[in-house]
Amino acid sequence: MMNELELIRQLTTGLPPHPAVVTGPGDDCAVLDLGLPGQWLLFKTDAVVEGVHFTREAAPEQIGHKALARGLSDVAAMAGTPTAALITLALPKDFDAAYVGRIYQGLRTLAQAHGVAVAGGETTTNPERLLISVALLGTVDRTRCVHRAGAQPGDALFVTGKLGGSLAGRHLTFEPRLAEARWLAAHFSIHSMIDLSDGLATDLRHLLEAGGVGAELMKSAIPVSAEARRLARAESSAKPPLLAALTDGEDFELLFTAASRDAVPLLDAWKKQFPDTSLSCIGKITREPGLRLRDREGVQPFTGHGYLHFT
Amino acid sequence: MMNELELIRQLTTGLPPHPAVVTGPGDDCAVLDLGLPGQWLLFKTDAVVEGVHFTREAAPEQIGHKALARGLSDVAAMAGTPTAALITLALPKDFDAAYVGRIYQGLRTLAQAHGVAVAGGETTTNPERLLISVALLGTVDRTRCVHRAGAQPGDALFVTGKLGGSLAGRHLTFEPRLAEARWLAAHFSIHSMIDLSDGLATDLRHLLEAGGVGAELMKSAIPVSAEARRLARAESSAKPPLLAALTDGEDFELLFTAASRDAVPLLDAWKKQFPDTSLSCIGKITREPGLRLRDREGVQPFTGHGYLHFT
Repeated sequence: MMNELELIRQLTTGLPPHPAVVTGPGDDCAVLDLGLPGQWLLFKTDAVVEGVHFTREAAPEQIGHKALARGLSDVAAMAGTPTAALITLALPKDFDAAYVGRIYQGLRTLAQAHGVAVAGGETTTNPERLLISVALLGTVDRTRCVHRAGAQPGDALFVTGKLGGSLAGRHLTFEPRLAEARWLAAHFSIHSMIDLSDGLATDLRHLLEAGGVGAELMKSAIPVSAEARRLARAESSAKPPLLAALTDGEDFELLFTAASRDAVPLLDAWKKQFPDTSLSCIGKITREPGLRLRDREGVQPFTGHGYLHFT
Repeated sequence: MMNELELIRQLTTGLPPHPAVVTGPGDDCAVLDLGLPGQWLLFKTDAVVEGVHFTREAAPEQIGHKALARGLSDVAAMAGTPTAALITLALPKDFDAAYVGRIYQGLRTLAQAHGVAVAGGETTTNPERLLISVALLGTVDRTRCVHRAGAQPGDALFVTGKLGGSLAGRHLTFEPRLAEARWLAAHFSIHSMIDLSDGLATDLRHLLEAGGVGAELMKSAIPVSAEARRLARAESSAKPPLLAALTDGEDFELLFTAASRDAVPLLDAWKKQFPDTSLSCIGKITREPGLRLRDREGVQPFTGHGYLHFT
């Protein structure tokens, strides 16, 4: 069976060019030029489905938070500012209005924290399970918009936060890195950026393919989360922590590249600006394609994948 | 159980105001002011669900057509121009890539006909049934945007096309009235407009409630479709044709009001501009709230409803 990426490629191949489209399918958001002075528009949709992205065991406020936070993370990955959201609730027949109200509450709290207007939406029927789709509109300074493509050989590769084990809970509560991404784009020349939704290895490959480059990661520099370590200790069949950090999905951290000469000033300035959020330089961009891992014993190709829908 | 409208009202009550929002929940589209010279942005999402809005008996191209045409009809109802669409495909586990490709083909053909960029989207999983959600971004001239609110006592009430019996097939093939709506707003002072998705009676009530007014319809002027007449003849349990025209959903025609002095020039100019599409003056707006039907015997209140989700 075809996976999500192959299907999207098939569906979007041969789409005719359009004068308003700066960036179409294949980036974190679509980028549109509608003549807004100095700005482009960012346009994004993201859906969460019961039993796939959350279960009824989650607090409804957290389900609403996650439904909006995922799309906000994509706006962050372009260094943008979200403006407005439309919420589509596809509800089972037995929906409970109070439960749905609590989902909306989680969503509204996050929207307000980031100045996002909930400008409407609709409800429809999805008899077997709850599905929430969020459409987002945002803006980005034309001179500061960061794409997936743009990584240069020699670039330093950075990741925010700690990776792996998100399904233990953080996937429901994470804060999208909007302020961090805008600060990065305002103070440094960020060559390329993506948010981590499918796992470091898979999302890094997207960034590398978009730029026509490869990467070498330093094993010891990959920031492994406490949850990934705890899960590995708790269950012998769990992934080793480093593999979890490389392949677990739903981290919603930022992965980006900048010229290597900017690496030290960037890390220093970050520490002052965001003392509570770690930033790690985890490797470098190479001319040679593919993804490789370096440790004391040498360099080896890494072929593992994160979560790919439908596979 | 609560119906869709009551739920949306509950969810969107008390949403904090936002400087970018011109019109929030409760109109055909959200209207946003992002500083685009002379223009507002229109923002809309609309979802179709297998078994609710279409069945697998429909040609997949028609399913794609309908998924996009519904939202385009809402952009039309504000006299706007659609710019870009994002397509969310929530697919059952057994999805067939060729079938999905044909859905996309129907969607792309309609997008191209109206100059809409398919700027991306995503696929996700919805195990039991296909769900397609379309997010739309458009623009509208600030001086020509038509809202649901705005009907004035004494206004003439108009409807395009013929009503009723859409489920016999037209709901899958209708053409959104984009050019017609823009022409109307460019040449006449249109006081209020809505597209017919839930049936004439129900959507008219939305327009009346938004304007704080009522309406009196002339029974004999309501344009009943050939399908509604055919269905009534074919099955004794079917709705009488006039009731079908008043209460069947999914007509996707335009319902609008203009000053009564404009009624004759408007009908004349329409006939020249759109000779193949009927336009009917079906009644007038009244100060007295509520919906009434007039025939040779007199005036009676009409309390019937069209399709309301979840009821």
